[in-house]
Amino acid sequence: MTTPPPAEPTPAPGSRMDAEMREQPRVLAALAARAPEVARAVAAVAPPRPAGTVLVARGSSDHAAVYARYVLEVATGRPVALAAPSLHTRYRVDVDLDGWVAVGVSQSGRTPEIVATLDALGRAGAVTVALTNVADSPLAKGAHAAVVLGAGEERAVPATKTFTAQLAASAHVAAGLGHTGWDVDDWRAVVDGVAAVLDDPGPVEQLADELVGAPPLLVVARGYLYAAALETALKVAETTGSQASGWSSADLLHGPIAVAEPGRHALCLAAPGPVAGDVAGVARDLAARGVRVHGVAGRADLLPVDGVLLPVPLDVPEPLAPLVQVVRGQQLARALALRLGEDPDRPRGLRKVTPTT
Amino acid sequence: MTTPPPAEPTPAPGSRMDAEMREQPRVLAALAARAPEVARAVAAVAPPRPAGTVLVARGSSDHAAVYARYVLEVATGRPVALAAPSLHTRYRVDVDLDGWVAVGVSQSGRTPEIVATLDALGRAGAVTVALTNVADSPLAKGAHAAVVLGAGEERAVPATKTFTAQLAASAHVAAGLGHTGWDVDDWRAVVDGVAAVLDDPGPVEQLADELVGAPPLLVVARGYLYAAALETALKVAETTGSQASGWSSADLLHGPIAVAEPGRHALCLAAPGPVAGDVAGVARDLAARGVRVHGVAGRADLLPVDGVLLPVPLDVPEPLAPLVQVVRGQQLARALALRLGEDPDRPRGLRKVTPTT
Repeated sequence: MTTPPPAEPTPAPGSRMDAEMREQPRVLAALAARAPEVARAVAAVAPPRPAGTVLVARGSSDHAAVYARYVLEVATGRPVALAAPSLHTRYRVDVDLDGWVAVGVSQSGRTPEIVATLDALGRAGAVTVALTNVADSPLAKGAHAAVVLGAGEERAVPATKTFTAQLAASAHVAAGLGHTGWDVDDWRAVVDGVAAVLDDPGPVEQLADELVGAPPLLVVARGYLYAAALETALKVAETTGSQASGWSSADLLHGPIAVAEPGRHALCLAAPGPVAGDVAGVARDLAARGVRVHGVAGRADLLPVDGVLLPVPLDVPEPLAPLVQVVRGQQLARALALRLGEDPDRPRGLRKVTPTT
Repeated sequence: MTTPPPAEPTPAPGSRMDAEMREQPRVLAALAARAPEVARAVAAVAPPRPAGTVLVARGSSDHAAVYARYVLEVATGRPVALAAPSLHTRYRVDVDLDGWVAVGVSQSGRTPEIVATLDALGRAGAVTVALTNVADSPLAKGAHAAVVLGAGEERAVPATKTFTAQLAASAHVAAGLGHTGWDVDDWRAVVDGVAAVLDDPGPVEQLADELVGAPPLLVVARGYLYAAALETALKVAETTGSQASGWSSADLLHGPIAVAEPGRHALCLAAPGPVAGDVAGVARDLAARGVRVHGVAGRADLLPVDGVLLPVPLDVPEPLAPLVQVVRGQQLARALALRLGEDPDRPRGLRKVTPTT
């Protein structure tokens, strides 16, 4: 007769997610220290001027890819495409990727369709780069260059530290493929900014109080911050089971704004830069329709907010602002789940790795 | 003293949308007859082997672009990217598109940001193609080649005939840029298939009866049909003000399936082909979670449907199936709006052209 091993004590709801969120300044600082090494490793295998870039990702990593497309397109001066995996894993399209770079993004590095798609793109002639948290994963081992996030194990189901690490790693890869506009001081501002947000939970608690029982949240941004809006909506949807949705301000105007009516809440993300006026305009439009508008911004005058303002430091350049602003979304998803009596570490119906092929 | 002109009589709710849906067989047949001419016009300006393709679109046209990326990537053997307009209209990215083709998709041909983005891509070296319903629109006049849909004026706010015409025109453009697998008989099957669906409203009425008052509908597909799922969800959201959402079966598994619970309804789109098993698998997964699963398919055995099956003809090849299946979505959006006392021709809060920049 064998004795079962003693059960591991169940941690308090949301404690894992909280602990992993708090690791982010350390993880991002370590990645920033390795930035020159990452850029050199990518530059060593990539063509001097890529013909284009293809990104391969799913789920939270898909949102990291939405961010990566902006930094990579600006750095390389060539279009960035998001792969449709089924074209490779199901339809077996015959494609010529000579001169291209393909970047696979997967926290675990073992989602079969991401591995298979990056592999197919490599066979088609692309130089392949893996962005993953697991050094000996199939994705890392099959790629020409692997950028390992070094975020440590992530046990809470909602990705937090691996997501911000993916954004940072994408930016460091961009620096290896072309010209980027940020420097060491900017990364220090990111690390300090994330730490400052984590040390300031009050505004999110206030917003969560308002949002409990409200209809699905609209999250709105544009440009670099669009990925943070998508990810914030996904985190809230994952941890609360709601239909929170993320929008680019331009897409929202093309139809879905019809769902905006009194009783709804919107969270708008803004940073000083060329699209700030677009997001402020949509915020005004939403307010005129009776939507209660909350904001994530470093200055109150960036957005017409009649609800809660979730402050963020202002010294982070717009291309890196998503790394800081998405932490507000992580805090909100966790706080909302706890108010609903859910465990944000283990949302109902979700698994950590989804083995799509 | 002047007398105001007599007011135009208000048509019955949904009559414009209905009339425009019924024009689709004629519009698609006319486009099919012009297919060789469209392909020649595109081939005359495009490089013999494009380095890649960039699509520029918003709203319903964005879903046409999701479809176009599949047919264009298969035809050209090169990646297809969806443009992020803000990179061009706001951030003014410096990009080199020598050897590339850029396709702008806009029903009106006068959405400022689509016109401005296609123009920027052309200045960056791309050969530009306009897909639009308006021959003398800024989009058509500024492009190297213009493919005019010939769908006639569309007065109902939800795009129907212009959407299926955009899909058809995308396929004809693909034939001008590379190899496609369909022929004249396949287009005849599309035209006949759309007519057959329009002549068979009964199943949709039955489904609409079930969906009135239900929580937001999930619409699921993969591959070529993914665009039809997105468009079906958008139509339903537009005409009913609900949060209906469209999903690729693979993306749904990566998180959002958590919102699937008893009481929800899903509509799955399937056609015989390499991804049919993926969609059937998700349908089974949804049913196991207590979701009521409806389907659009030509054969009942393609999907495990416990709800309503919306039949479609089976003789349309999978790459062209979205043109027929999305008509089921149009019928559903119209029927649901009428049951809710809304006028599907003029959904609240929506305008026909949204002038984003």
